[in-house]
Amino acid sequence: MALSEFAARRRRVSAAFGSLKIDGLIACSAPNVRYLTGFTGSNGMALVWRGGAVLFTDPRYGIQAASEVDCAVRVVRGPLQSALTKAAARRGLRRMGFEEGRLTLKAYREIEASLGLGVTLEPAEALLQTLRTVKSAGEIELVRRSVQLNSDAFTRAMAKVRPGMSEAEVAAEIDYQMRLLGAEGPAFDTIVAAGPRSAMPHAQPSSNSIRRNQLLLIDMGASREGYASDMTRMTFLGRPGPPVRRMYKAVLEAQLAAIDAVRPSAKAGDVDRAARRVLRAHGLEKMFVHSTGHGLGLEIHEGPRLAKGVATPIEAGMTITVEPGVYLEGVGGIRIEDTVVVTSSGCEVLTPTSKELLVL
Amino acid sequence: MALSEFAARRRRVSAAFGSLKIDGLIACSAPNVRYLTGFTGSNGMALVWRGGAVLFTDPRYGIQAASEVDCAVRVVRGPLQSALTKAAARRGLRRMGFEEGRLTLKAYREIEASLGLGVTLEPAEALLQTLRTVKSAGEIELVRRSVQLNSDAFTRAMAKVRPGMSEAEVAAEIDYQMRLLGAEGPAFDTIVAAGPRSAMPHAQPSSNSIRRNQLLLIDMGASREGYASDMTRMTFLGRPGPPVRRMYKAVLEAQLAAIDAVRPSAKAGDVDRAARRVLRAHGLEKMFVHSTGHGLGLEIHEGPRLAKGVATPIEAGMTITVEPGVYLEGVGGIRIEDTVVVTSSGCEVLTPTSKELLVL
Repeated sequence: MALSEFAARRRRVSAAFGSLKIDGLIACSAPNVRYLTGFTGSNGMALVWRGGAVLFTDPRYGIQAASEVDCAVRVVRGPLQSALTKAAARRGLRRMGFEEGRLTLKAYREIEASLGLGVTLEPAEALLQTLRTVKSAGEIELVRRSVQLNSDAFTRAMAKVRPGMSEAEVAAEIDYQMRLLGAEGPAFDTIVAAGPRSAMPHAQPSSNSIRRNQLLLIDMGASREGYASDMTRMTFLGRPGPPVRRMYKAVLEAQLAAIDAVRPSAKAGDVDRAARRVLRAHGLEKMFVHSTGHGLGLEIHEGPRLAKGVATPIEAGMTITVEPGVYLEGVGGIRIEDTVVVTSSGCEVLTPTSKELLVL
Repeated sequence: MALSEFAARRRRVSAAFGSLKIDGLIACSAPNVRYLTGFTGSNGMALVWRGGAVLFTDPRYGIQAASEVDCAVRVVRGPLQSALTKAAARRGLRRMGFEEGRLTLKAYREIEASLGLGVTLEPAEALLQTLRTVKSAGEIELVRRSVQLNSDAFTRAMAKVRPGMSEAEVAAEIDYQMRLLGAEGPAFDTIVAAGPRSAMPHAQPSSNSIRRNQLLLIDMGASREGYASDMTRMTFLGRPGPPVRRMYKAVLEAQLAAIDAVRPSAKAGDVDRAARRVLRAHGLEKMFVHSTGHGLGLEIHEGPRLAKGVATPIEAGMTITVEPGVYLEGVGGIRIEDTVVVTSSGCEVLTPTSKELLVL
């Protein structure tokens, strides 16, 4: 990522200060600090104002911060927030935005207590969250590489799946392959769910063995250079019968319809509606118990939410998942998920893995 | 874990309500919810009062909660906190403790807004954190199993380490072996640091290859049935020369002295002082740049902190790490770490792995 990209993000953030009547912004959470400064360490705070920014961190990260960050760096012994509020006071900042959904009450009160008279903290998290939904060319490239790595890990891990392995062993194999391919790790807990367990959308891998003639749902994503990917594929060990094939075909049709609905000018809810309409035609709508997708980037779950009635406009540069699914309790579930990037005229599916039902 | 153990914990918590002048407690964070109710899902809130408790969760976790939890369970569609504050109002609770260092400002304000007139929220996180430092027999057994699994994973992974492998590949192998042995995953990001990189106490595994005649620092811990372990061992690919052997011997002497200082009646700071005193005698005190250890259990970092001047009394049943280290920038670092449990007369070292410098 070019260093100037972080400066451009800070310019975009501070250009929106007027709408919130703030003259500064405090970022405390690791993804937002990284987004604004490039810093990847675990202990950092950023102060942004019109025309400048400082990253605060502790001595463990001094060398790393100097090489990652394009703004001023202050290495602080002791609490970062007191150094930050002093720096804000020196610049005469009076109304400072902060991340109300990330900062704990304790940290909020510590910052508040060190502010000068008349200086206030204002909720401003939505500003950052909204800016982050639209990715730069550099970020799209990082998501693309994460998606590619994730699909490569899937291919390598699937070559090792045998009946008798446990769900947990398959998940361990997937995460291992991701790491060998250069991921920091999985972007979320890998889901491997066989047979009836695939009907639980958030199943954790169990010690249950994978058996022949069962559905196997695999939902996996990598974190690579900080950026997430997300994919769900279904496999079947044996020959799936007509009911499974029919259900699979319906979900695939819904997923393709949703992908087709992703374009600038559409609303997030339109993409969800496109998937739901197909499943309704197949009599499966009631079994689709979650939303159609979500944005992803520095975090696995970002805006926009592709859910019923969400009016957020789809914009070029958004990276989102499209993942309808149907779940029949006690029997099994089928979900198909790709990561896509919104283009000027529609979207590009980044996930290269085939969507044929994988028969092992 | 016997179900009655959770009820016993809630009794201990509510017995301390008087000292904080509270008549109820709200737990929102996953480890504290799990500690008080047994619930392991990702979305839960617990309300505890004298004589009762309710766990609130969403429909995804209904079946799971019913099987894990020994108190009342309320499955809620929509925000958990409004159901929780209604339940608190029905019981006439007026002053409710909460986790000020875990709850975000946004969640705090949402709870506050749904409280009745005159009902207040009071900081009470320290109460839970203090109770959690002393483990039950059941918890100690879980830490012991986590420690054993971690050491087994170390042995298996070390059998595969060869010169030319990258730090990241070794870390991937370690995490893979943990998972195959039944861990949910690593309890923290596994540290594999070769040569000069071992001088950075929080080095992330890089793509650098491991070479002959270098120190290799491995700091790893598993999470098994929710409980953490933590161990650091040094290896050397080749024959270490006298300077490395001398430094290793000094750190081991410091670590053994610190373990010897762990006993009820000692203060946390005494354990730290014991390690520092040995390193001072070797002229290495300035290179020991962190504290001597920390409690661990449902989280990898719990109380007490074994640091300079900390007056917290060491108590039987605490599970803690003992991990002095010395770091010479540009050259390398040596740290040796065990997990120990405090007994009535001293402590038992749970970590079974040899502390000989492992020469591969």
